[in-house]
This record gives sequence, C-alpha cells and structure tokens, in this order.
Amino acid sequence: MSLKLIEKHRSFGGEQCKYTHYSEVLKCEMTFSIYLPSNKEKKKIPLIWWLSGLTCTDDNFSQKSGFQRLAEKYQVAVMIPDTSPRGEHVADDDGWDLGKGAGFYLNSTQYPWAKHYHMYTYIVDELTTIASTLVPHFSGEESIMGHSMGGHGALVIGMKNATRFKAISAFSPILSPSQVPWGIKAFSTYLGEDQATWNEWDASELVKEASVPPILITQGTEDQFYQNQLDETCFLKNARENNQEVYYKKAEGYDHSYFFIATFLEGHFSFHMQHLR
Amino acid sequence: MSLKLIEKHRSFGGEQCKYTHYSEVLKCEMTFSIYLPSNKEKKKIPLIWWLSGLTCTDDNFSQKSGFQRLAEKYQVAVMIPDTSPRGEHVADDDGWDLGKGAGFYLNSTQYPWAKHYHMYTYIVDELTTIASTLVPHFSGEESIMGHSMGGHGALVIGMKNATRFKAISAFSPILSPSQVPWGIKAFSTYLGEDQATWNEWDASELVKEASVPPILITQGTEDQFYQNQLDETCFLKNARENNQEVYYKKAEGYDHSYFFIATFLEGHFSFHMQHLR
Repeated sequence: MSLKLIEKHRSFGGEQCKYTHYSEVLKCEMTFSIYLPSNKEKKKIPLIWWLSGLTCTDDNFSQKSGFQRLAEKYQVAVMIPDTSPRGEHVADDDGWDLGKGAGFYLNSTQYPWAKHYHMYTYIVDELTTIASTLVPHFSGEESIMGHSMGGHGALVIGMKNATRFKAISAFSPILSPSQVPWGIKAFSTYLGEDQATWNEWDASELVKEASVPPILITQGTEDQFYQNQLDETCFLKNARENNQEVYYKKAEGYDHSYFFIATFLEGHFSFHMQHLR
Repeated sequence: MSLKLIEKHRSFGGEQCKYTHYSEVLKCEMTFSIYLPSNKEKKKIPLIWWLSGLTCTDDNFSQKSGFQRLAEKYQVAVMIPDTSPRGEHVADDDGWDLGKGAGFYLNSTQYPWAKHYHMYTYIVDELTTIASTLVPHFSGEESIMGHSMGGHGALVIGMKNATRFKAISAFSPILSPSQVPWGIKAFSTYLGEDQATWNEWDASELVKEASVPPILITQGTEDQFYQNQLDETCFLKNARENNQEVYYKKAEGYDHSYFFIATFLEGHFSFHMQHLR
C-alpha cells in the first residue's frame, strides 16, 4: 500500500492528519484528511465521514469548520475525502461545477469520465478499508455527513448503505439533483442522457426505499443557492410518504458558507452520537 | 469616509463582516474584518483586537480559528486588521517575511517603506475610530491578542498603550524581535541600522516599563519556529525583574498552525473577559 502521512497537527488533544495514496479505484494519486481523537481511555470509537462541496478539497472542512473540538468532545474519528479524482491525466472541465472538485460521489459510466470518476466506490470500498486501519480501537460504527454536493453525497451513500451508516446529516444539500442545474449538468455528463440511470444517485428517489437511516438536514434561508439548486419540496414529500425519520431545519439568515456550517455543527455531531452509541 | 461593506455572514448568531476603506495613514485601500455578536440584550460590549501573523490577511483568523463561537458566548466584538499596507504602488520584497503581509505593526522611518508602512498608527488611531463607529453599544473597553508576528504586534501595541488595553495575549509571539532573524530583517529594513530605534518596538524592552496590562502567552513545544524566532528567555527575565503579571504556558506537542490557535483560544478569550469586565 502506498499510504503516506504528509501532515500531522495536534488539535484539541487529538491529531489532524493528512495522507496521500495511490487509489486503485480512481487510478490516480489522492489526498485525504483524518482526525483521531485523543481516546485517553482506549475505548472503542466510531467514525463519522464528512463529504465536502463543489470546488473543495479535504482542507476546507478540516481548516474552517472547527469540527475537531466536537470530535474530541465526543471521542469520534472523522474521515474527510477529497471531492474528485486528481492529477493532470484526469478528465476535467472549465466549469467549477464539473470535473475536478466536482465528482458528485457517483460512479461515472461515460467516457472519458468513467476512466477515473468513481468516487462512490472509492469511498465505500477503498477508503473504508484504509480508514479501518488508521482508526485505533475502531468500533465499526459509522455515520456520514456533508455539505451541498457533499450533502447529496452523504445522503446517497448513506441511503445506499442503510444498514452500514447509523445516521446521515447534511448542510444545504442538493436534494433533487436530477431536477436542478448542478445535478443535471453533472449527471448528464457522468451518467449520460438516459435519466433512468440517474435515480440511484438521487436522494429524492432513494428516500423512497424501505428503510433509511435517520436524517438531519439544516438549510440556511439566505443561502444564494437555496432556490435554484437546493429545493427540498420533492425530497420531503417522498420522505413523508414513506414515513422516513427526516428532520429538516431552516436556519434563519444563514448562507452557504462555512460560517453557517461551523454554527450548526455541534447539533449535527450530537445527532450522530445519539445514533452511534 | 470610504468605508464599504463587502461581505456579511451570519455566524453563531452574530455577524462576520468584511469592509474595505481608503486609509489616510497607509495611503492605500485596505480590508479588515469585524465580528459583531448578537447582543440580544443590548448591553454594552467590549472589543478584542486580533493581529495575525506573517503572510496572513484578515481572513485567516476569521476563517480558521472558530473564534466566533467564543465571541458570541462572551458577547464581545472582534476586530481583525490586515497585516500590512496593500496595493501595486506599495513597496514590497520577494521574501514572505518582509513587505506585504509582513508589516510588523510598527511605523517605518526608512524609504521607500516609510511611505506606506505605518501599521501601528493605522491600528491605534485610524482603525480605532472606525471600530468605534461599527460596534453598537461599544463599552469603550478593549484588549488585544495575536499570533506570531501578530503576537509581537499585540504585545507592543498593548504595552505602548497600557491604560487603554485591559489585557494582552499572544500565541507563539516573536518576543525579542531585535534578537531573531525575522525581527532583525524587518527592523533593519523598516527602521534602519540604528538599533536604539528598535527598542520601542521590542516586547522584551517594553516589558521593562512601569506597569503593563496582564499578559497571557501560549507557545507550542513542537512549533518549528520556536527555537530560532520565538525564544522567551529574555522577555520572561525582564518581565520577572519588573514584577509584571505574565502567564507563559507551554502547549505540549502543538505546532505553529491555526489548529494550535483554535485549541487554546477559549482559554485566551476567558482571560480577556476576566479583565474586560
């Protein structure tokens, strides 16, 4: 295995680490970050996955959210993948909402994208194996959260693996990607024009499944992308019709930024910990 | 006045704002950030100044420290200046430790630097006037904190204005700039070769003054700059000989990063609030 530790910072008693490795799934060199709490009592600890939004790397959440205070408080490890395959040989697009930094946490079927864009399998298989080797005293319990495109990713990955993830939460997620500009652009590019293939990557469709993990969503009312990209109507209707445990909260006056995420992160961690223990 | 609001984000109930303005002191366009807590009870609120380190702008602290949670908790406004004059017409140097991003919070006497590099007067006079207009229900009470070069700045500005600032704190500050590479390079450039002119900008000299505000310093033991740039021996000796109230704490295993600052920021806010009320 090519796993290489490239940064380690003590943070709130635990360790904020950054690794690079060659991904067999993505066929490129990848970077991720992971936080390990101090775990002074050597107890079994769970793992929360964080998936970031468009244009982000693993740095945004680790540097801007202040999550380490909460991860240490609750004694939980946190895994932060990058948002797409990387490298000069990887297909890209001039737009910031497609290609590198915009992998949408799915497995592409359309060339040239299908050559590298398999973020779903990368996270659910390859990075999961790596995480399990990096977290000492790992309890095996996992949950998943994310922001915007990463909120979409958390919902999709969490619902597609409903027995594995104990809870899902999202900040300003793309809830109906098949119906909004960001999602339509990404899905038609990565998955092709046959919209039947889009359903398995659309949270509003997946929430119709028999039983999904409990879901918490927080959406800022002053989010510039709310109306055009993040509309909740279809998702909430389908969740309600299928009696899913979904808590959808509006945050008055908040926007799409990490200032918003940082503010409500403690509530999300608390929600996850209720279901991880 | 040319003051212009260019960003406003709701954060932990308060507002994280960014302004631009033309500085008469620095003779250039400047940017700063300010946090205003919610102040729901319309009480008088104090102001803490934060001074950043080499290469930083007003963004580093506002985006990476998580301070807004504490500013809202303690109901205190926080003012975050940039670290140097800015603009194409402003003198600069190829090094990251001199020129733009490296103003050292002093008033330069050497041309071409003296044309713009007057960060001390900019903060103590011009930005102070602006801050007093921006903080509703301002109590008039102030304290100052900073990191690295900004820790030097907080100590120097706080001690030179000992009756104005109720407390000073610093993370990994340059305590004896006249004796270390960063300080010698900056002082000889901005102030000239006559070292007698350096003393008024050197915390280890200023701490000999009759009475300085209470000072809290936190220094990471794994800080890569500790030994060569941030040595505390001279400062602590002079502080002790003059019976100053100085608390110098070592943080085992911590480095020079914002992960370190974020970890110990609550203790610093708590220290400031003891002296602001």
